[in-house]
Amino acid sequence: MMKRDILISEVGPRDGLQSIKTVMPLAQKKAWISALAASGLREIEVGSFVPAHVLPQLADTAEVVAHALTIPDLTVAVLVPNLRGAEAALSAGAHKLTIPFSASETHSLKNVRRTHAQMFDEVRGIVALLKAHAGKRPTLEGGLSTAFGCTYEGVVPADKVVRLAAQLCEAGCDEVGLADSVGFANPAQVRDLVVRVRAVTGEKKFAGLHLHNTRGLGLANVVAGLDVGVNTFDSSMAGIGGCPFAPGATGNIVTEDLVFMLESMGLHTGVDLDKLLEARKVLAAAVPHEELYGYVPAAGVPGVRA
Amino acid sequence: MMKRDILISEVGPRDGLQSIKTVMPLAQKKAWISALAASGLREIEVGSFVPAHVLPQLADTAEVVAHALTIPDLTVAVLVPNLRGAEAALSAGAHKLTIPFSASETHSLKNVRRTHAQMFDEVRGIVALLKAHAGKRPTLEGGLSTAFGCTYEGVVPADKVVRLAAQLCEAGCDEVGLADSVGFANPAQVRDLVVRVRAVTGEKKFAGLHLHNTRGLGLANVVAGLDVGVNTFDSSMAGIGGCPFAPGATGNIVTEDLVFMLESMGLHTGVDLDKLLEARKVLAAAVPHEELYGYVPAAGVPGVRA
Repeated sequence: MMKRDILISEVGPRDGLQSIKTVMPLAQKKAWISALAASGLREIEVGSFVPAHVLPQLADTAEVVAHALTIPDLTVAVLVPNLRGAEAALSAGAHKLTIPFSASETHSLKNVRRTHAQMFDEVRGIVALLKAHAGKRPTLEGGLSTAFGCTYEGVVPADKVVRLAAQLCEAGCDEVGLADSVGFANPAQVRDLVVRVRAVTGEKKFAGLHLHNTRGLGLANVVAGLDVGVNTFDSSMAGIGGCPFAPGATGNIVTEDLVFMLESMGLHTGVDLDKLLEARKVLAAAVPHEELYGYVPAAGVPGVRA
Repeated sequence: MMKRDILISEVGPRDGLQSIKTVMPLAQKKAWISALAASGLREIEVGSFVPAHVLPQLADTAEVVAHALTIPDLTVAVLVPNLRGAEAALSAGAHKLTIPFSASETHSLKNVRRTHAQMFDEVRGIVALLKAHAGKRPTLEGGLSTAFGCTYEGVVPADKVVRLAAQLCEAGCDEVGLADSVGFANPAQVRDLVVRVRAVTGEKKFAGLHLHNTRGLGLANVVAGLDVGVNTFDSSMAGIGGCPFAPGATGNIVTEDLVFMLESMGLHTGVDLDKLLEARKVLAAAVPHEELYGYVPAAGVPGVRA
């Protein structure tokens, strides 16, 4: 494997915080995001423009974006479920918008009450909005959720995911990513689906992988992604959020463990693990009653034991 | 990746039980091993022939072997630290003996109070013993522990591991395996070291990988091993034993998660996951105060949620 540069997109402030009960106060969010950026993370998904009654944890996303924009060289990403969310994101000045698009139409209907046809309308509306924007245009990613399977539909055929990826590009998305929202993916499937999807999106428009560790295969799936050339991975500090199951069955893959693995393999993330563990302390202090995951924070990095 | 057959060598009754405080009574060990074999596991390391005062948890290994030998089509493996242990294993009738040989000489001295030269004497003594044996000769594996790093020496040079592997073959070992005893390995290192070691042992004499999940990279390292053709992996039910760290920082890789991953990838382990989870219940009942690990036992297999 060649030495190469890997982008880690930290999604803890969005995917993590939306999944835990604690509502983190704005001041702590700002401090945490600053600490994350100080560790060398170059992209952070800082929130989601959804109605406050749906996700009260993320009601202050506009203020969070405003703070994140003051951090030099940081790509400030947000999630937008629809055109209205995109308008808010555009006003706030986010650099990157991701619209989640569930490959499972059943999940799409249950989650956002929209068919695939309605979701494509939403995407085209956002694309038109961004095109009409006078200032520097933010990037739009179509995030194909449940791409590796769905708890409502079970298997989601790869052909369908490939077709949707092509249609998202046609609709005007700058990038398309694949999300294993419910932790169904295995390494063979990751290799297969990435290769097939990238064949229709092209290298440049493939946004990367968003993996969950529900069944403990998160980092194994990263290795499979690396094998087929994936260079961008989402992860969440301390693996917070995401899973209603027993201890150990975490949500997102853990940023700390991911950084350790990639750097150990001789890849370059730009992240300083010591500083990342400092940022974890900021998180721990802000959500003292939430369970934090991660093997490397518990075991430390390999080395001679004093 | 081609459909291929993977051998999982279950080491819970040895590596797991030696690392926990609970001494499992003989009757429960028998029941657990029978349940493990009933799930389709074809090789189980059932104990270790070490003095009872060193490891009281494994003092009944001869009786455990006698029971395991009554199970059809099961390879009964044991660990032997020296010639005396090998004599006991031979008397007991074990099919396979593994002598741990620490690539780190400091670790070897601290652990078994022997230099590498003394360890090679031990290996040659065992080889002579086995050659002189009248009955069906058991297999002897040299298990290169701390092959990926050591808590005393830190980095263990790959060249040294390769040289030791060649010398173990020359000394008469039937197979040589690589163990990441302290959880230092990363996927790039696994690929590199396996390829280099197998170049000197040959395909047939490469015994496989014994991985720990201390830093959460266990299954990622399995994927790396699969990539370079490894077909045998040690693992431990519920990941019991092995680690003095915080919750989540487990010992061996978890058999249940390993079986799930391999079968999901379309590989063939011969293990029935439902029956494996039945065997986990036998273990849980026998060691009620020990922490059991594993993501798949907690989250279940992927599927449509009722």
